[in-house]
Amino acid sequence: MIIDCHGHYTTAPAPHQNFREAQLAAFEGGLALPTPLTISDDQIRESVESNQLKLLRERGADMTIFSPRASAMAHHIGDEQVSKQWTRACNDLIRRVVELYPETFIGVCQLPQSPNVSISNSIEELERCVLELGFVGCNLNPDPSGGHWTSAPLTDKSWYPFYEKMVELNVPAMIHVSGSCNHNFHATGAHYLNADTTAFMQFLQGDLFSDFPDLRFIIPHGGGAVPYHWGRFRGLADMMQRPALSDHVMKNVFFDTCVYHQPGIDLLFDVIDIDNILFGSEMVGAVRGIDSTTGQYFDDTKRYIEALNLSKQDYYKVFEGNARRVYPRIDALLESRGL
Amino acid sequence: MIIDCHGHYTTAPAPHQNFREAQLAAFEGGLALPTPLTISDDQIRESVESNQLKLLRERGADMTIFSPRASAMAHHIGDEQVSKQWTRACNDLIRRVVELYPETFIGVCQLPQSPNVSISNSIEELERCVLELGFVGCNLNPDPSGGHWTSAPLTDKSWYPFYEKMVELNVPAMIHVSGSCNHNFHATGAHYLNADTTAFMQFLQGDLFSDFPDLRFIIPHGGGAVPYHWGRFRGLADMMQRPALSDHVMKNVFFDTCVYHQPGIDLLFDVIDIDNILFGSEMVGAVRGIDSTTGQYFDDTKRYIEALNLSKQDYYKVFEGNARRVYPRIDALLESRGL
Repeated sequence: MIIDCHGHYTTAPAPHQNFREAQLAAFEGGLALPTPLTISDDQIRESVESNQLKLLRERGADMTIFSPRASAMAHHIGDEQVSKQWTRACNDLIRRVVELYPETFIGVCQLPQSPNVSISNSIEELERCVLELGFVGCNLNPDPSGGHWTSAPLTDKSWYPFYEKMVELNVPAMIHVSGSCNHNFHATGAHYLNADTTAFMQFLQGDLFSDFPDLRFIIPHGGGAVPYHWGRFRGLADMMQRPALSDHVMKNVFFDTCVYHQPGIDLLFDVIDIDNILFGSEMVGAVRGIDSTTGQYFDDTKRYIEALNLSKQDYYKVFEGNARRVYPRIDALLESRGL
Repeated sequence: MIIDCHGHYTTAPAPHQNFREAQLAAFEGGLALPTPLTISDDQIRESVESNQLKLLRERGADMTIFSPRASAMAHHIGDEQVSKQWTRACNDLIRRVVELYPETFIGVCQLPQSPNVSISNSIEELERCVLELGFVGCNLNPDPSGGHWTSAPLTDKSWYPFYEKMVELNVPAMIHVSGSCNHNFHATGAHYLNADTTAFMQFLQGDLFSDFPDLRFIIPHGGGAVPYHWGRFRGLADMMQRPALSDHVMKNVFFDTCVYHQPGIDLLFDVIDIDNILFGSEMVGAVRGIDSTTGQYFDDTKRYIEALNLSKQDYYKVFEGNARRVYPRIDALLESRGL
């Protein structure tokens, strides 16, 4: 079984976006927020079958851990109520995709974060999604300001109530920023990668996993700049008299494989322990075209991994085993199906 | 000849830092700024001979392109006058190092940037350093706010007067941020790498090099996350209907080799054209220790490059030729010495 740990519903039917626009217009006009528009099952089927499902089948993967479009979370737009309503609508839509294709999709939720609003206020939605909707994890935004980085670092105690709930529910979080309203940062070309690098360095500096030995994070996009600069991070840990990264960070932090060329994947697997790598493609996501140098989709990361000639055991880890370990609720679900 | 394109005076004698502290205390107290303290030639010799010169000799390099300590530029502290005075003191000290060791060091200047102050105000110091002190380039900070990223992107026309002067003087700039006053960003573990990635993506998005075909930038730290995510950037350029990176960006942008492990250097040279890579070590810099897995200094990047078994011609490019091409004033100086 091949599980893609990183898929977003980037192709949601038009009424979903239309609702968002009406919602923001109402907010700006000081009017009551509208209710989400009706979306039919057929609209959902069409949006998925011609995109994610089609590519999944073509590429030979079995299951996608699926969450709302990351760039559209836009926690910096509107206020907490706007974020809450939008988040519920996004998560409910993921739930409907999962209901229509339970063999293929499994839900991960967006959180109703908002700048200067306590992360504790996101606990309720996490519980709803995990306990009522059957989701297996969440996307946690380290910068709800959208590129102004006004929050406390992820190791700050203000995040702890949320981490306690994650541990209690036994769900991991993917660290994932949203769109950028800072004109210095292109979202998918700078802000995403910067956030990945930033989060890792915060974990290196802090002692978060002494306080939460069971907390688990996935840092997407191949860990940002981290594997390429692995010597730098090992050296910084040494200079700062932190423990070795293998003990201090890498028992709790995992990287996906959203690195869109063979040399990058080669380096990732060369440098990072196989137990810390989860197959992911971010499909349909940041980069949708075909690489003229290979004739294949940039984001068909399964090809790059298959070119590595790993052992059978290592392939099992990257494609399935690590995901089942990091997301125990997936493991339980698959077991209940005899898988 | 082996030229290290990235060295900072991180070991300046104590009176330099004492002056800085007195200067900032005076600023905060609303008093007249003090004048720089006297530093003897012997103090300078000692600070360099036991550090940069010692390591340079041990590692077998010949020359370092030398600039003030990057993390201490701290453009976000004080105001424009404070930045101007500190910048002059830092640059004057670099000039003295070069005068004492003209065969080994060649100067690159800090700029008197300050948040919300026009970059045009840095032209005078650039001219002074190049025309009077014999410097060959500058370090340009894309974020003088120190981690709040309040400036316009590097492709914005507000930067153009400075670029015109760079072209006129025929000097390149290394894109280099300073310390971070944003608690999310560790300076050398996150802010530096994020800035490198951010600058590259700004160049990809913009059309700066159509306006300035002769403008040249060095992006340090191996280009941040860029080479590791080279497929992502090629794919984004394709999606955004930009020209190929080789034409659009890489005629004007160069990466150094400040990547502190063998797999990272392997990837850099695998992915980036040899004409775009300049040997650099950032010594004595961000990571000063010895890698326990190799028994060698993390930042002894010459070793990693030598392990690549490049052709003689390619070694010439990385160690000398590219630096002479990107910094024409170095080439002229060396030619005047018959080198």
